[in-house]
This record gives sequence, C-alpha cells and structure tokens, in this order.
Amino acid sequence: MNNAVDTDTRLEASVIPENELQALDAYWRACNYLAAGMIYLQDNPLLQEPLQVKHLKKRLLGHWGASPGLSFMYVHMNRLINRDDLNAIFLAGPGHGAPGVIAPVYLEGMYSEVYPDVSQDALGIKHLFRQFSFPGGIGSHCTPELPGSIHEGGELGYSLSHATGAIFDNPDLISVVAIGDGEAETGPLATSWHSGKFINPIRDGAVLPILHLNGYKINNPTLLSRIPHDELEALFIGYGWKPCFVEGDDPMIMHQKMAAAMESCIADIKRLQKQARQSGQAKRQIWPMIVLRSPKGWTGPDFVDGNKVAGYWRAHQVPLTEVHDNPEHLTLLEQWLRSYRPEELFDQEGRLSPSLQALAPQGYRRMSANLHANGGMVKRNLRLPDFRDYAARVGSPATSSAMNTRPLGAFLRDIMQMNNSNFRVFGPDENTSNKLDAIYEVSKKLWLEDYLPEDDNGGELSPDGRVLEMLSEHTLQGWLEGYLLTGRHGFFATYEAFVHVIDSMFNQHAKWLAIAEKLSWRAPIASINYLITSTVWRQDHNGFTHQDPGFLDLVVNKSPSVTRIYLPPDVNCLLSTADHCLRSQNDINVIVCDKQSHIQYLDMDSAIAHCIKGLGIWPWASNDEGEEPDVVMVGCGDIPTKEALAATALLRDAFPTLKIRFINVVDLFRLTPESEHPHGLSDRDFDSLFTTDKPIIFNFHGYPWLIHRLAYRRNNHPNLHVRGYVEHGNINTPLELAIANCIDRFSLAIDVINWVPGLKVRGAHAKQDFRDQQIACLQYAHQHGVDAPEINQWQWPFAPVTD
Amino acid sequence: MNNAVDTDTRLEASVIPENELQALDAYWRACNYLAAGMIYLQDNPLLQEPLQVKHLKKRLLGHWGASPGLSFMYVHMNRLINRDDLNAIFLAGPGHGAPGVIAPVYLEGMYSEVYPDVSQDALGIKHLFRQFSFPGGIGSHCTPELPGSIHEGGELGYSLSHATGAIFDNPDLISVVAIGDGEAETGPLATSWHSGKFINPIRDGAVLPILHLNGYKINNPTLLSRIPHDELEALFIGYGWKPCFVEGDDPMIMHQKMAAAMESCIADIKRLQKQARQSGQAKRQIWPMIVLRSPKGWTGPDFVDGNKVAGYWRAHQVPLTEVHDNPEHLTLLEQWLRSYRPEELFDQEGRLSPSLQALAPQGYRRMSANLHANGGMVKRNLRLPDFRDYAARVGSPATSSAMNTRPLGAFLRDIMQMNNSNFRVFGPDENTSNKLDAIYEVSKKLWLEDYLPEDDNGGELSPDGRVLEMLSEHTLQGWLEGYLLTGRHGFFATYEAFVHVIDSMFNQHAKWLAIAEKLSWRAPIASINYLITSTVWRQDHNGFTHQDPGFLDLVVNKSPSVTRIYLPPDVNCLLSTADHCLRSQNDINVIVCDKQSHIQYLDMDSAIAHCIKGLGIWPWASNDEGEEPDVVMVGCGDIPTKEALAATALLRDAFPTLKIRFINVVDLFRLTPESEHPHGLSDRDFDSLFTTDKPIIFNFHGYPWLIHRLAYRRNNHPNLHVRGYVEHGNINTPLELAIANCIDRFSLAIDVINWVPGLKVRGAHAKQDFRDQQIACLQYAHQHGVDAPEINQWQWPFAPVTD
Repeated sequence: MNNAVDTDTRLEASVIPENELQALDAYWRACNYLAAGMIYLQDNPLLQEPLQVKHLKKRLLGHWGASPGLSFMYVHMNRLINRDDLNAIFLAGPGHGAPGVIAPVYLEGMYSEVYPDVSQDALGIKHLFRQFSFPGGIGSHCTPELPGSIHEGGELGYSLSHATGAIFDNPDLISVVAIGDGEAETGPLATSWHSGKFINPIRDGAVLPILHLNGYKINNPTLLSRIPHDELEALFIGYGWKPCFVEGDDPMIMHQKMAAAMESCIADIKRLQKQARQSGQAKRQIWPMIVLRSPKGWTGPDFVDGNKVAGYWRAHQVPLTEVHDNPEHLTLLEQWLRSYRPEELFDQEGRLSPSLQALAPQGYRRMSANLHANGGMVKRNLRLPDFRDYAARVGSPATSSAMNTRPLGAFLRDIMQMNNSNFRVFGPDENTSNKLDAIYEVSKKLWLEDYLPEDDNGGELSPDGRVLEMLSEHTLQGWLEGYLLTGRHGFFATYEAFVHVIDSMFNQHAKWLAIAEKLSWRAPIASINYLITSTVWRQDHNGFTHQDPGFLDLVVNKSPSVTRIYLPPDVNCLLSTADHCLRSQNDINVIVCDKQSHIQYLDMDSAIAHCIKGLGIWPWASNDEGEEPDVVMVGCGDIPTKEALAATALLRDAFPTLKIRFINVVDLFRLTPESEHPHGLSDRDFDSLFTTDKPIIFNFHGYPWLIHRLAYRRNNHPNLHVRGYVEHGNINTPLELAIANCIDRFSLAIDVINWVPGLKVRGAHAKQDFRDQQIACLQYAHQHGVDAPEINQWQWPFAPVTD
Repeated sequence: MNNAVDTDTRLEASVIPENELQALDAYWRACNYLAAGMIYLQDNPLLQEPLQVKHLKKRLLGHWGASPGLSFMYVHMNRLINRDDLNAIFLAGPGHGAPGVIAPVYLEGMYSEVYPDVSQDALGIKHLFRQFSFPGGIGSHCTPELPGSIHEGGELGYSLSHATGAIFDNPDLISVVAIGDGEAETGPLATSWHSGKFINPIRDGAVLPILHLNGYKINNPTLLSRIPHDELEALFIGYGWKPCFVEGDDPMIMHQKMAAAMESCIADIKRLQKQARQSGQAKRQIWPMIVLRSPKGWTGPDFVDGNKVAGYWRAHQVPLTEVHDNPEHLTLLEQWLRSYRPEELFDQEGRLSPSLQALAPQGYRRMSANLHANGGMVKRNLRLPDFRDYAARVGSPATSSAMNTRPLGAFLRDIMQMNNSNFRVFGPDENTSNKLDAIYEVSKKLWLEDYLPEDDNGGELSPDGRVLEMLSEHTLQGWLEGYLLTGRHGFFATYEAFVHVIDSMFNQHAKWLAIAEKLSWRAPIASINYLITSTVWRQDHNGFTHQDPGFLDLVVNKSPSVTRIYLPPDVNCLLSTADHCLRSQNDINVIVCDKQSHIQYLDMDSAIAHCIKGLGIWPWASNDEGEEPDVVMVGCGDIPTKEALAATALLRDAFPTLKIRFINVVDLFRLTPESEHPHGLSDRDFDSLFTTDKPIIFNFHGYPWLIHRLAYRRNNHPNLHVRGYVEHGNINTPLELAIANCIDRFSLAIDVINWVPGLKVRGAHAKQDFRDQQIACLQYAHQHGVDAPEINQWQWPFAPVTD
C-alpha cells in the first residue's frame, strides 16, 4: 500500500499562484456557463437582458451532472499542456456530459474553425446553445461531430480501452480519459483497468485515467463511491495503478489539489518513460491515475423545491425542469447562470476575454485540434507485400488441402515486419490456435509482467511485442478501435461464437463510422478487419455453446456504407480478400474462414478474379456449359462449399444428363439489390447467374434465413432453397453436425432431387442410396468417434475442364 | 490490508488427521484417474491389462489442464458438507475442465442414477469414458446433461454472477464457484466481483469463490497469475473480499492448506450470517474467498519430448497427443494413469472402495443431487394478482393516452409483494426512468453499502430490497439466470439499444434451455422475461448510439422451442402479455414496449382476445367490412402502430372508397410458418388475414428485413412492403426520426398510393399533399425543437364501429 500518494499533504502548498488560480477558475466558470447555456438557452446567450421564458428552449435536453467535472479536468490538462508543451487528447467516458467538453472545445476556437457559423461571438454562442441536442443540430454525447473526440460515450464501458489503443505506438501522446463511476460498474470497463499491463513505456505513450467519483448514476448511488477509502485505494493498487485522490467541493481548494495531482501524475509519467527509454528496458510500470471525487452537478443548484440536487442523482440531467411555468425555477435558473458572472468572462460582443484566451493551448496542441483525434490526418497507408507470394499451390481444383489461415499468418507476419509502428494484431489467446502463429517470428505477444524460465520454451512473449492477447474481447476491440481512430491499422482474429461478446461494440463503431464518413473534416481511417475463425462447422467437438454464426445477422443491419462481409472458400481467396480489406478505409470488414485443413479450389489468378467479382460460376464444377442449367448449386463459406461440391459430384454420377451450375459466393452483399448496398449485384446480373426460374440450392455458412433477407427481392427468390445452421448442435463429428443441419452432401443431393421438376420420380432410387450413405456415415462416426476416411479425404472426382 | 488471512501460518497445523488425509487424497486420485480416462480411454477402463493403442479413443478431446484443480475443490467441499451438513452446489467457471467435475459426480453415484448405463462398475466406467466428448455422448463442458450443473462454462465470464443469483433468497445455500484465471480476464467476470455488495447476510445464502490461478490460458500466461502477491491481495480486498491463499504443488501439503482455508471460509460465512441474523441488521459483509494457486495439469506429465507440460500452458488440453503412433507417449500415458493406483481405488468389478464411498455426501447433500441445481424441482409457481385490475380505461380506441409501462410497474409491485422470497426485478439503474417505480412501494433497491442522509430524499434504497440495480447488464443477466436456474422467477427491464451488451449471454442461455428441456430429469424452470424499453423511436433525443432494435434479429435465430417475441401496442396488451410470460416455463420472452406516454387502443377484454390470437384485424380501424380489402395496413409495435393508424386516417379522408384492412401484430412469431415455430400461423389463416394478392404495408418496430425473414414463404410475400428502422438516426424529434426511416404516417400513406393498383394516378394530388404536410412538420420541428401539437395529440378521428 506504500505506492499511493495522498495529495492532501500538499494541500497548503498552493501549487498555483493566486492570479493564475483566479484565471483558471474563470476559464472553468466560462465552461460551466456555456454548458448550462447549451441545456437551457436559445436566445439572450450572454444574459445581457433579464432572463425570460422566451429565451429558453422548449425541450430541455442534456446531462448537466457530469459536465462541470469534465470541464474541470479539461482546463487543468490545458494548464499542463501549456506548461510542458504536452501532446494530449481527451476522452470523456461519460459522453452524455458532452456540454462539459463542447464548452472548452468552443472556447479554444476549434469548434468555430470546423463550424464557422458557431463563431467566437454572441451570435456564435447563440448558435452553439441552440444546436445542442436540437433537431438538425448535434447530439448530446461526444459524437463524431465534436472536434477532438474519438470516443462518443453513448454506450458505456470502453473509454479506458479506447484511450489505451490511442497511445500504442504513439510514444509522445498522453490520453487523458475521464471514467464515470457509473461506467466503472460495467464489465468492459472493469477489466480494462488491466490495460496498464500492456503499455510499453518505451514504445507507447501514456494514459492518464481520471475516475470521476461523482457519486451517482441516473437514480442510484455508484458502487465505488460508497466503499471505504482504503478499499478503493486497494482496488486500484490491485489493478496496478498508483491512485492520487482529489476530493472536495470548494472550487478554489479543489483547483489546488487537482493541479498538484496532475503535476504529480505527469511527472510520474515522464519519469517512468525516461527511465525506460534511457535504460532500454521495457517492463510493466505502475502508472499514475487520479480519483476525482467531486459533487454531481457541481456549481449547479443545491436544492430545488426542497429536494437536494447538486451532489445527488437529481443533478444527472436537467436540474431545473419547470422553468417555463414556474417563475421560481426561472429565477433560480437565472441566479445559477449569473453565478458564473458571464459579464466578466465575455466582452459585449461575446468574445472570451483575452486573458482567458491565453490559457488555451495553441494550434495542434489544443486537445480539440490534436491530429491524433482525427486519425485519418496522420494515417499512413500500410506497406504491403504482394499477397500473391503467399499463395497456396493449387493444381486441379478441389484435389489438395491446406490450412486456410496459415498462409494468412505469413502474410500478416510480413506486414507486421514492414510496418513496425502502425500495425498490430489482436486476439483473445487464440492466434496460435487460429494458425496465425507465423506472426510471432517477427513480433511476439506483448508481455510486460514477470517472466518465468519456461517462457523460453514456446512462450512467444516479448516486452516489445505488437501482438496483443488478453482473454477479453471487449478490451481488444476497444484497444483496436482506439488504435484505428488515431490513424493506424489492425487485424482482429477471434472465435466465431464469441464475437457476439462484442456485438454492441461493433454496433457502436459502425454508427461512429457512418456519421464520421459524412464529415468532410474527418479524414478516413483504416477499416476494422475481423477474421472470424474456429467456425461453427468445426465446433463439433466443443459443442453447442461454440456454434453460433449469427454475428453476420447483426452486421447486415448496419449502414451499408460501412459494412462488408466476405466468406473466402480457400487460402488464395482468403489472401486476396485480406489484402483488399487491409487497403480499405472506413469499413468494417468481416472475413469468415475456418482455421483447419480444408480442400483448395482456386489458383491465385483464379482466386483474384473470383474475389473481384465477389461471386461467380465455377466452370470446372459445372456441366451446364453456357446453357440454362437444370439447377443452380451454390456454396458460400469453406465447408458449405465443399459439401455443395460433393453433392454436385454425387448428382453428376447419379444423373449424368442433369445440368448443374455451380456458383461460389465470397462477397455476401453481392446477393442484395444494388439499391441496398454498394456491393449489390444488378438484377440483370443476378438473373443471368441464378436464372429466373430454376431451383437454387444454396448452402450457406450461417443461419439460412440471412440469405432470404438479402435476396428476397430477386426474381428467382421463390425458387431459392437455403441450407445453413439451424441450431442443431451437440457433441458431433463434423459430418454428423453437417447432417444434423442438412448442409451435408447427401441432404443437398436429396434437395436437388426434390426440387428439380421431374427428378423426384426418376431419382427415387438415387435418393434412397444417398440416405443409405448418410446413415452409414453416421454409423461410422458413432462407432469410431471420427468421420470415415472417404469423407475426410474427399476430392473432386472429375477431370478439370479447360475454360 | 489487515483483513486477509495468511493460511501459511497454519501450515503445520495438520487440519486433517493422517488417515483422513490419505483417504481424501485417494478420492482425489480416483477423480484424476477418471478425468484422464475420459480423455483417452475407450476400453480397459481399470487398466487391468497393459495399455494398448486399441484401448485408446481415436480422437483425443477434452481439457486436462483445469480438471485436477476442479476435483480438488470438489472433494474438499465434500469433506465440509459431511462435517457440517452443508447445503451446497458447485459451479465450474472453466467448464471445459468438465472431466474434473464429471468424475466426482460419477463417484458419488448421481451420474449413474440419472444415466443407468453409466453404472457403478467397470462397464459403467467404460461407458463414462467412451461417451465423453464422443459423438452421441456428452459435451466437453459442464453441459445441462451433467447432474448438479447450472453453469456450462462454455463461454467464459458468468460463473460468479450465476453463483450469486443462485443464493439470493436461499439463506441456507452455499455456491462454491471455481473461477478460472483466464475467465477472470473477461469484463463480465471482472465486474461480477462486486456481487458481494449485493448479498444480504440475512435473506441470502453465501458464495464461496475460488479463484483458480493455474497460471495459463490456451497459449499464454494469465494476467493475475503474474502480478505480485501484494497486488493480487489488494485487488480482492479492493473488490470487497477477504482472500485466503492456498499455494503450492505438493498434494499432501496442499490438502492441509486447502482444508484449513475452506474451514476458515465456512466459519467466516457462518459467523457473518449468524451475526446478521441474530442482530437483524443486514449490511454489506466482507465475504471470504480462496485463491488456489496450483499447477495447470497438476499430477499430469511434467515433461513430454523435453517440453514442459504440467504447470505450463501445454497442459491445457491433451497433454500427450501422439499416443497412437509414438510408443514413448503411450508408455508415458500408462505411467501417468497408473500413478493414480487405480487398483487401490476400485475393486475388480470397478466399484469404488467402500472407505472412499463413505467420503461422499449422502442423498440430496451431494452437490450433484442438490435440488437447487435442478431448479424446476423446487420452483413454486408465482402467486399472481389479476392483471385485469391494472387495466387502463380505454373508451373509444386511440383517443386517450397513458404511459405504457406504468401500470405494469403496479402489477410487478403486487407480484413482488405476494412473492417475497422467489421473485426479483433487475435493471441497470433504469427502473424509475422506465416508469416501473411503483415497485419501490413494496421493495426498494437493494443497497448494503453505506447510507448518506440524502438517501432518505428519494433514494428508494433498502438493505432488504429485491430490486437489483447495477450498471452492468452482464451482472444482472448472470444473477437472473442463476436465480431462475435455481427455481425462482424474475423480470429484467432494460434499454433496447444496450440489451446487445448481453447478446452472447442470451445466446448461451437459449442454448442451455434448448438442451435442458429435452432432459426428462430436469424439471422446467421459469422463463426469463425481458422488457425492452426506451426503444429506438423515442431515442430521438439521445441520438444514434441509443437507436438499435436489432436484438430481435438475434432472438429469431435461436431454437423455436424457447424463443418468444411480443410487441404489445398499449397498456392492456402489455399487461396481458406480461401475465402470460410470467406464467410460462423454459422460454425466453422478449417484450418490446416503450415507456413514454402513448395512445391507447384496446380495452382489457379486447386486449386479452387480441393477445391470445397474437395478431388480428382491428375492425374499428378498418373499412373493408368483411370484404376483400384494397390494401392491408399493418402495425407492429407501439409507435409504428400509431403511425400506421394515422396513415390509415389520412387515406380514408383522401380516398373514402379505398378499402383498408388494419392489422396489429403482437406475437411476432405468428408471422412465420407453423412448421418453423410453435406460434406460427397456418398458411390458410395467414392468407385469410393478409390476402394472397393485395399490397401489405407493414410498419415494423425493428429492422424491416426481419419481417421478410419471417414471412418469405407466405403466399402474399411478393406484395409485402415493410417499413422499419433503417439506421437513419441523429438528433431528432420523434416524428423527424420516423420520417427519416419512412415509418411516419405520410410516408406510409404515400406507400399505399404507390402500391395499390390504380391509385398512383388518382392519388397524385393527395401524394403531394402528404409530402407538403411532412415537410411542414419537419420545418416546425426544426424551428421549435419539438413536434407540432397536432402530431403529438393525434387521435383516431372516426367514430367507433360496433363490431
């Protein structure tokens, strides 16, 4: 317990001289005035007239509670940026306290630079107030529209992981991150305190977390605000931080305490970085943090109608709600607003007084203007080796096997090597399991804690690694988002079933991107790239809990401008897809590909051509030879493609005259109309591929209904029959799992017999034969615990066609 | 730091007498033998012959690493159950260590009682081995098939919250919960340590968490295993626990340490409960916990081919993988298995020696047989007041307004009062915001931490409350699942957008239920009931991040036998729906209903009839009067229904001869074919309601494609036009948000003009008029920040029809 600093002992030290203290407080008052004004005023922005109902917004929206504390942190950081020429950004975990961030952003001029209508004068302040949480205006969180924001804070839990991602490979940057004590109760935030264990003091910058203990959520006290001091201190020491406590409510005393705490923290950060950088020894550091215990709705009304407001949960949103109809409330509001003495802060024209203007950092040192918070501005494109160099050698299609993700691992390895300060790979303890371990040849897993002798025996750990592994998808996703939003590149490989853990984070990032890409001043950032592997069809052994291909169903609901889904069937298609994704911008790329050994289909040139088209006929597997087929067989996904091919082979044996067209789909959004998604295929092209009247047997990797959701408007939709995972799982062999969900070769062949007109009678014998084979396979599996060799070693049995 | 117990000081105390120690260790050896046998053997179960390849399973599956530690905990708990006649259940966070749980469950006889084929003899052991992780057998986690399990441990993160939910209102129960150090890195687990702050020592039982620091995940060290001891201790003190450390690798010494630690913890639990129960004073306690630091794969092979295995990550799954082909590995395996001396443990017939049998608890005291772990066995039905007593008075339809969730709050209040030990309400700090605060009249929010004077001023806190609020959807969901799985009832109200936070938990619970309901020996448990409120269409002010109705898209993918979705349009339908859900079993009921003031449609009798049908024509809003209509207008969800009705009114004014049938859908699964879901409507009924050839304008609460996914097989699907949320959101008014997504009355009326044959030309003027009105509404909103009064106060303008 001896590494905590009690700042109380320096209380009398008066860190800030009196004149500077007065100015700092005035600047903070200006912030608080603007924050309250945003919630209430649509006119009379400087209170140059007595306040009247007509000056008020009709609908009072916004969250006052967290705002003063956020401004307090912001202005104190400004002081140190100026003093030490720091390079810093600010993240507000409680993003609903946006007024407390917008205010200082406006005061330092950046808001007006981006939005000239919100000028640095009375008219501009009026606009600032009016547009806040107003239709056609800006939202009530730290949305993408807010200069300097990389963290909206709408959904709670990710502030600290975002802040940490931002400083990876940014050795000079400091992320100052406010963490609400409400947010601190969430799971993602609770584990993200371990982020400190992943900050390399040489290679990375620093995070300065400020836990804002203002005591209350919407209607409840917060857990952390009511535990004993010793327990709170122990918790953060336990998490690996050195907590500094700043506690109280008298602004002048609190300014001194906060200044002392922040100076101490910045000094600690500089010292730890210097020691490590001079010695060249990177190891885990006990980084400083601040616990700011200040009243909720600080400086706002203390009591309203006899009810406690400031310092209580009632201050969470709008402290005075009856201002339109209750003259007492209107008077209280005017008194509150005038308590900040706006006339001392702004001149008659609404310009901040020059002495206060001087307190803001200049140019790019302003946290609102820091280029790292508009990451596309500092983004460099990745240097990429030629992905064709990693190709699997594929001769005749579907006759050889390879582990699909292994060559990707080699590709990522070389990307890692060629981009040693702006590319990282993320995964929850599964990169080896996912066959991407070639990466470790050039960059090991980051590990800054203690080492044991056995770590040399296959540990693949390094204090300088840029592969980040932690058993928290939330933290990884948060880090990656922070890394991308500050202009770098990344790759996230994870188990298919457990990507649902971060469904809501995906949703929020998609929403951020959809807004951000419409803002001309926000430069595009690198896409987020997911490799979804250990997929449902090879989770036969882990069982039902590990079988869930439903992430795609979530992805398709988000804005078409940012969502992309690829299901490459083999190594070369995966490489081509990955290369495309790594070059893209502002997208969310979801690549689904299993890690185990799978049959290979396309040589590299064919794979490239196929991936560019996104879907297409495989002539070598088709026998319709340019004519209208009897049936269209479709594979989408590695294993469904193999089974669909095997079904095609069964059928061609049984019905030599049956004309089967074989199509593989890589780019899922090709299936949707072109009006719905930029990748959508035209109806004309769709019809020419899928016909307008022939049965389509579509073997899909995921839940089958997703295909109907995408293709229901297509002309031939009535003849579209989709197979996919229908939640029939248990402990199985791979083929047994396929059979349980009817995506196996036998079921598909029977589907064709059932759906092709005229085949039902003619095919009765074949159908029985397919059923018998299916049963024999199940019997083999139940006897031996594995699938029969002829299933595992199946190859396309026909000679290649030269097309 | 003075409340930690260092058990090392008692090392020499020899808690267990020598003879008892030997027996305890033998029992543990029997567990370890069986666990290893499950992974490897299909024959020669007692090693009565020399081990040969033919005795081995072909495919080696299962996780050895965590197994010995789990058995170690289990057998030590058995000792105290016997000594103190404890009532306990066991949860394995690392459920992949199932062999370590299945083994003691088998040894104490419960496995054979449930599965007679797995008898208490050599043949039974052979079956036990063979079926493990084998097709047609049981999975590799603590699946529902395992007697005594209420926690599968497939997806990691929820063990402690499940364990805590189990002991709420179960004052005599102790949940012993193993928490893996991998799982401990997840967000949900990290915040669930705060569960201790919600355990009432009078009303509730106790949780005994055992953090299993075995040092490694699949391929990596764990974070918590490599931080200094002081830091680890501080972390748990900070979380509010009293950690006891049991560290080492010598079994005999470790038995003594573990026995001492467990005795100490049980004594602490009993003391804290007794103090509170005698004094009647419930407040937060510092509950004991154990940190068990033991080698991964303990007692397994230390080195294989020169590589470290035991005590390293290589022990995670199968320690010896080449046993089929490498004779050295086979020899190592045989040595390892024989090291447990099976001949001393089992007799020639494979029966556990009587002296060891005596170590298991008896009857229902066995953790595998404890009825709380088969919660349906102890479930009592809820006592329910008549929901009709809470009805909103509705005269003429769509002419009055009410807050939809407020009467539900009163209903829940009285349920709470009538069921004071088996019903709880859960919500992340939003029950007041969600207008359910009537509950607090009879049971306040549970709060066991310190109280401040202001808490009397609207705090609604009580140490005896049964409303649980914490800003962690993960923890709430985990508690609720634990509560339901042990035979009680609950209700969870949450924000629509943020229910995605627990997507993956929903998935896993749905999978658990789908398996469990097929097991005849598992009695049905109460359904999990979600009220999804603060819905997308009233998140205009919170903006884009708070708009996400996509949870339903996830729900529809899970087993139809357990999934139910309801969108009651008004108070009385909500009450009827809630009553139905609270009476149901083994389901997941998702009720979507907004909390704000909404127009009311149906009196209680009509509502009940409507909800029983699940969907139906509203005759008072229709003018097709038994004939075939020109168009079918459908509302599904409260706000979409209002807009669809308003559109109907606009159209009836503009086109008096146009015959419109108005349908409202409450039970979403009615739309899907009856072959797909038990609630599915027959095609005949569907056709008679929706016609086979008339345009259907379907106004849906969620993403529109979901309706196509459900109804694509219906005859009239080609004429189905769905409106819903299409991800167009920002800061808006409610109507502006509706317009942006085309679910507003004007857009719908225009849709009808566009789709009803012949109306396009005749309706050109009306169409322009609707557009003008739409634009005028937007202008009003942008000027005033609110919607025009005629929009907010809209009522159905036609006289009621007597039907």
